[in-house]
Amino acid sequence: MQGVTGLLVDLFVIFLAAKLAGELFERINQPAVIGELLAGIVIGPAALGLIGTPDAGLIAVFHGDIVAAQEAVNVVYHLMAELGVIVLLFFVGLETRVADVVRVGTRAMAVAVLGVIVPFVLGFGLVGLALGHPHIEASFVGAALVATSVGITARVLRDLGVIGSIESRIILAAAVIDDILAMVILAVVTGVATTGSISMASIIAIGVQAVLFTLFVALVGAGVVRRFGLGLGRLRMDNAPFAVSLLAMLGLASLSAQIGLAAIIGAFLAGMVFAEAREHFELEHQALPVYQFLTPYFFVVTGSQVDWRLFLDGGLMGLALMVTALALAGKIAGCGAAMTGMGRRSMAIVGVGMAPRGEVGLIVAGLGLSLRAIPADLFSVVVIMSILTTLVAPPLLRILYAAQPEAAVEPGAEEPQAGLLPDL
Amino acid sequence: MQGVTGLLVDLFVIFLAAKLAGELFERINQPAVIGELLAGIVIGPAALGLIGTPDAGLIAVFHGDIVAAQEAVNVVYHLMAELGVIVLLFFVGLETRVADVVRVGTRAMAVAVLGVIVPFVLGFGLVGLALGHPHIEASFVGAALVATSVGITARVLRDLGVIGSIESRIILAAAVIDDILAMVILAVVTGVATTGSISMASIIAIGVQAVLFTLFVALVGAGVVRRFGLGLGRLRMDNAPFAVSLLAMLGLASLSAQIGLAAIIGAFLAGMVFAEAREHFELEHQALPVYQFLTPYFFVVTGSQVDWRLFLDGGLMGLALMVTALALAGKIAGCGAAMTGMGRRSMAIVGVGMAPRGEVGLIVAGLGLSLRAIPADLFSVVVIMSILTTLVAPPLLRILYAAQPEAAVEPGAEEPQAGLLPDL
Repeated sequence: MQGVTGLLVDLFVIFLAAKLAGELFERINQPAVIGELLAGIVIGPAALGLIGTPDAGLIAVFHGDIVAAQEAVNVVYHLMAELGVIVLLFFVGLETRVADVVRVGTRAMAVAVLGVIVPFVLGFGLVGLALGHPHIEASFVGAALVATSVGITARVLRDLGVIGSIESRIILAAAVIDDILAMVILAVVTGVATTGSISMASIIAIGVQAVLFTLFVALVGAGVVRRFGLGLGRLRMDNAPFAVSLLAMLGLASLSAQIGLAAIIGAFLAGMVFAEAREHFELEHQALPVYQFLTPYFFVVTGSQVDWRLFLDGGLMGLALMVTALALAGKIAGCGAAMTGMGRRSMAIVGVGMAPRGEVGLIVAGLGLSLRAIPADLFSVVVIMSILTTLVAPPLLRILYAAQPEAAVEPGAEEPQAGLLPDL
Repeated sequence: MQGVTGLLVDLFVIFLAAKLAGELFERINQPAVIGELLAGIVIGPAALGLIGTPDAGLIAVFHGDIVAAQEAVNVVYHLMAELGVIVLLFFVGLETRVADVVRVGTRAMAVAVLGVIVPFVLGFGLVGLALGHPHIEASFVGAALVATSVGITARVLRDLGVIGSIESRIILAAAVIDDILAMVILAVVTGVATTGSISMASIIAIGVQAVLFTLFVALVGAGVVRRFGLGLGRLRMDNAPFAVSLLAMLGLASLSAQIGLAAIIGAFLAGMVFAEAREHFELEHQALPVYQFLTPYFFVVTGSQVDWRLFLDGGLMGLALMVTALALAGKIAGCGAAMTGMGRRSMAIVGVGMAPRGEVGLIVAGLGLSLRAIPADLFSVVVIMSILTTLVAPPLLRILYAAQPEAAVEPGAEEPQAGLLPDL
C-alpha cells in the first residue's frame, strides 16, 4: 500500500538489529535487553541512521512535505513502541496474581516499600536539590530509579539455579509490589507533567486517583474474571479468552491514557486481572509470541532516541555514574534494611537482586522525554543507569550465591513467578 | 507518548468492533470474516465515523495541519492493515508445505488452473470488454476473482464434518495451488499498475520475475530450512526458531515490496518455507496469537474503505451482482470441468467449495485501490463479491453433502491442510 513500504523495511531492520544484538549479548552472558537498547543507539538517526527517516514514497503521500513525513514516521515509531511496551506490561501482569501480591509476607512488602522510597528520595535529592534541576525533572529521574525489572531479575536467578531460595522468593514478590508502586508514582509524575501543576494537592489527587483506579480495576476486574472467566470458553468467536484479554489490554490501556495515567498502567492491570484465568486458558503461552514480535520495537526505538555522542560528554557521564551509584546504593540500603535480622548475606543478595532497573526505568524515561518533562541529556542518563544496574547485578549475585552454604537453598521448591518469564 | 493516545483508542475500537461482529456472525452460523468487514463499513468514516480521524493530540504534533494529521492516520491504518495481512499470509504459508503442493495429483492441479483461468477471463471480459473499463481495472477485478479462500473453505468443510472426503482433499490442495497462482497474477497486475506499462513484453517480464522469485525463494528457502532449520534451536536468543521465522516474514515481505511485487507474496513464501520446520518448533501455534491480534486490522480497515451509500446505487449493485454471478459460475464451470469423470455431485461440490473468495479477493482489491489502479466503486464491487461468494458457499455445500451417501466420506482420514486453520 502506498507510502508504507519504507516503514515496513524499517520494521524489518529494527527486528533484525534487535535479534542480532540479543543473540550476541546472550552469547557473552548478558541480558538480551541491553543488546536491543544498544542496537537502537547504533542504527538510530544519531549514528548509522538506518531507521527513522521517511522514504520517497512516504514523502509523496505528504505531497513533498518532508517535515510532515518525518513527523508521521515519528508517530508510527511511537505507536509501535507503545504497542510493544503495552504488550510487555500486559505479559508481566499475567505473571502477577492479585492474590499472590495480597498474600505475600510483610517482609516482601517492607523490601518493596523501602526499596521504592530510598531510591526515589536519593534520585530526587541529587538531581533536584543538589544539582538544582526543576522538580518535575527530578521527579522523573526519581521515578525511573524505583522499579526493579522483574524480568531481568527472575532470569538471572533462574540462570543461577537459585530460584527456590528464600531470598529469591522475597525478591520476586517484592519486585511485583514495587512494579505496582512504580505505576502509582509514574501516574503521579505523569499527571503532574501533563497538567503542569506541582501543588501538593494535585499530587495527592493524582496519587489517590491512580491508587483508586488500580485498586478498582485490580479487585473488581479480578473478581469478574474469577466469577465469569471460565464462561469465556462458551463464546463462539475463535479462541475467545485470549481475544477478550487482548480487548481488556487495549481497552484499559486506552482508558488509563485517556484519564491521564500512562497507558502501560492499564495494560499491566489487564494482565493482572486475567492472571486469574491464565492457566485455564494458557493465556501466557498465547501472549508470549505477541510479546516476542512487538516488544523489541520498544527497546530499539528507545535506544534510537539516545545520541551516542553524549557518552563522550564527561559531565554527563559523571552524572550518569552518580545516578547509577545512587540507584545501586538506594536499593541495597533500602531493601537491605528491610531484611534486617536475616543475616548480612541475605541482606546483600536481596539488595543486589532488586538493583536491575531494565525496562521500567526506560519506560519512565521515555515517557518523560515524550512529555517533554525531561531533557534529552537526563533521558540518556537514565538509559545509562538502566544499562549499568542491569550489567552489574548478575556477576555480583553469582559471587554472593557462590559464597552461600547449599543448605539455605531449597532446590525442589516451585518457581514462584518465573513460569514463562521470557528473556529480557 | 504524545499524539498516539487517539490512535491507541482507534486500535481498541477496531479490535472491539471486529470481535463483537465476529461473535455475532458466528452465532448466526456465518464466517466471522464477513462480520469484521461489515464492522469496518459501520464504524468507518463514511458511516458512524468512530475511527479514522485524527484527535487534537495528533493534530498538535502536526502543528495544527489537519490535512497532514489525516494523512498520518491513513498511513498508520495502512501499516496496521498491511501487518495484519502479512501475518495472515504468513500463517496460510505455514499451512502449505512445498512438498504437499508438488506431490498433489494432477486432478487438484487441473482444478486449480481451470479455476483460475475461467474466472479471470470472465471477470476481465465483463469489466474490460463488455463494460469498456480500462484494461488495468479489468485486470484487478479478474485477479480478485481468482483465489479461493483456503481459510473459509477449510472452516466450512470442517464444520460439516466432511474434511476427510475425497472432494475436500482436492478442494484444499487446489486452493493452495490457486493461492500461489493468484500471487503470480497479483504480481503481474501490480507490476503493470506500478510501472504504468501494459505491453505484453512487460507482462511477461513481470510474470517471469514473479515465478522466478516464487520458485527461487520456495525451493531454495525450503531446502535451507530443511538442511539447517533444526539448528535454529541452538541459537541463544529466546525462542530462536519463531524469531527467525518472523524475521523471514518481515524480510521477504519488505524485499518483495521493494522489487515491485506485493509484500504479502514474500510473507506467504516465508510461511511456506518455514512450513518445513513448523511441527518441530510449533511455529503455527506461536503464529496463531499474533495472527489473532493483528489480522482483524486488515479486515476492519478494508471494510472502513467501503462507503455504504454505494449499496443504494442501483447500477453499482447490478454490477456487483453480475460480478458475483461470474465469480460463482467461473469456479463452478472451471473447477467442475476439471472434475470430469468423477460424477456430477463431486463436480458441483468442488465447484461450490472453491467459490468463497474471502481475504485474497479483498487483498487484491485493497492493493488496487491503494495503487489507484481501480476506482472506489470497483473496489466496493469486489468487496460485495467477496462477501456474497462467502455467504453462498456454506449452505450450498451443506445441501450437496447432505444428499451424498456416507460411503464416499472417509471419516478416519487425516485432515490434510486444516490442522490449526483459524476462523476467518
